[in-house]
Amino acid sequence: MIPTLEWLPEGVSFLDQTKLPHEETYVLATDYIQVATVIRDMITRGAMAIGVSGAMGVALGIQNSTAATIPALDAEVETICTHLAETRPTAVNLFWGIGQIRDLYNQIKHTKSIPEIKQAVVARARQMYDEDIANCKQMGQHGASLMPQKGTVLTHCNAGALAACGYGSALGVIRAAVERGHEIDVFADETRPYLQGARLTAWELMKDNIPTTVLCDNMSAHLMKGGRIQAVIVGADRIAANGDTANKIGTYGVSILAKEHGIPFYVAAPWATIDVNTPHGDLIPIEQRNPREVTHSNGIQMTPTGVSIQNPAFDVTPARYIAAIITERGILRAPYTESIAAMSR
Amino acid sequence: MIPTLEWLPEGVSFLDQTKLPHEETYVLATDYIQVATVIRDMITRGAMAIGVSGAMGVALGIQNSTAATIPALDAEVETICTHLAETRPTAVNLFWGIGQIRDLYNQIKHTKSIPEIKQAVVARARQMYDEDIANCKQMGQHGASLMPQKGTVLTHCNAGALAACGYGSALGVIRAAVERGHEIDVFADETRPYLQGARLTAWELMKDNIPTTVLCDNMSAHLMKGGRIQAVIVGADRIAANGDTANKIGTYGVSILAKEHGIPFYVAAPWATIDVNTPHGDLIPIEQRNPREVTHSNGIQMTPTGVSIQNPAFDVTPARYIAAIITERGILRAPYTESIAAMSR
Repeated sequence: MIPTLEWLPEGVSFLDQTKLPHEETYVLATDYIQVATVIRDMITRGAMAIGVSGAMGVALGIQNSTAATIPALDAEVETICTHLAETRPTAVNLFWGIGQIRDLYNQIKHTKSIPEIKQAVVARARQMYDEDIANCKQMGQHGASLMPQKGTVLTHCNAGALAACGYGSALGVIRAAVERGHEIDVFADETRPYLQGARLTAWELMKDNIPTTVLCDNMSAHLMKGGRIQAVIVGADRIAANGDTANKIGTYGVSILAKEHGIPFYVAAPWATIDVNTPHGDLIPIEQRNPREVTHSNGIQMTPTGVSIQNPAFDVTPARYIAAIITERGILRAPYTESIAAMSR
Repeated sequence: MIPTLEWLPEGVSFLDQTKLPHEETYVLATDYIQVATVIRDMITRGAMAIGVSGAMGVALGIQNSTAATIPALDAEVETICTHLAETRPTAVNLFWGIGQIRDLYNQIKHTKSIPEIKQAVVARARQMYDEDIANCKQMGQHGASLMPQKGTVLTHCNAGALAACGYGSALGVIRAAVERGHEIDVFADETRPYLQGARLTAWELMKDNIPTTVLCDNMSAHLMKGGRIQAVIVGADRIAANGDTANKIGTYGVSILAKEHGIPFYVAAPWATIDVNTPHGDLIPIEQRNPREVTHSNGIQMTPTGVSIQNPAFDVTPARYIAAIITERGILRAPYTESIAAMSR
């Protein structure tokens, strides 16, 4: 079991993903401000993990509150939720996670005492943690049969146990297939600039003894042409109502390469990643991150001083490139507007 | 003028491209063994530069020889050529460059004295240097009109002055277009693992005040979809008789992305890059380089210890993805087998 994050009596403990694969160290967030910093600085990352982290951040903020009245607590909850929501803009799970606790708070604030409210929101955040793992395992059960019986599966970024509370979405599907006896080895795009594939996906799959090869992001087309890749599976940070999917930068390119080589391209994500309020992918906000992630490696500058830099953190894969979207409720197929609407009921 | 390499009385001087963009230092090779090391270790790199370096290496080896008879010199020339040819397998220019000097040697060895032979081979190697720059400028004249009047051109790796004796092939075409008044800015793929784009292309274009933005290799699809790229131009390490083109790993993927977005994809390379003895691209040998280039950055390991690594240095772009091949003789268009054969005459 990979301890991505954990609710503890003294706060929320996060495995510091900036230090992997070489050090397994933990950061303890004892207030919601620290939880926000953990999310913003990508000490924890991945749509599902930041969804539950957001929820735990709100719960922690409410638990720590010294407000004596509901109006005072209302104001604090507003501040807490706003601060946590400003950390990262693309993954809808963050807003969903924050919203789960805020909604519960609003439901019970006039009927329960403040100590009871505190207990209830913490219990809900901890329940979301358990549900996240259960959802991942359910995605695995639904998606395993889509994986090749024997072959190589390419993944981009890390949609694994480290991107969730455990097990993972895309890597959860791979794990479930391996548990059923599929002979799968994984090609992990290193995923510049943050190297989630080289550092995180490789680390967690090696822990599970799933054969893993790291490649630079620009190598997969060559390997696809050589018949070395049988399927692609990735996670998602937000799925629009029509199936357009925001995920780590580079995902869109991989989807085009897969189509060109006749290789199925799958997305695995919990239902909470589907944002029915966003009609299509062009409306998903794309986070731009610090140029330093591109210019520097291990603290050393690699580019000439003063050169311009692009560093979008996500891109959007249009639904037409996606063979199936695997959720805990079942497998969605095109046309996604219809299949998402049908499964929403 | 960027001094990629230079014949000096005491040997061949190479700008150390492993140290760019931060240090402009030079490595002096005083014998052919050192020239081979410079090529193998990528102190100099780029198809045109290693072609002329190979020629200069053979000329230096012959110049330094103490053989007193032609049979003795024959044996040395054989050793020299074999050693230099074993440095890098993909760029045909290396074998062409070596062959130019070996052929000249064989032509004159029975009619000239050993001092005369030495003088002739050195003169030929130096002439090849001048011809390389002239070829690049000619490519620029042919290709400039293919560049957008105003827009962004994506390039991958470094097919610039640093990959040649000066001016460059792909970047030479961009330079020629800018000299004609085109308003071009360049998107430079960083080009993992060796970062030729981030380090070299950015460095030499900034020297020429051509606006340049570095991006990770996985970002171009997103930028293409956003209408941010009007053309792609790359160099080549070997072009088969049918137009299939080997170039830096990642080029093939970019060609697919360009096609998917309706963006023209151009190759610029001197005629010597065309290998009419290789009927199609599947027959081009692809160099596999040390996994350490992928696993380590600035001496620090980024991947878990023991993970498998892919590190092919090149890939092959099928001719059907290429809008035009720009050479010093003129512009080739599909069907390439016919256009190459016609321009060969």
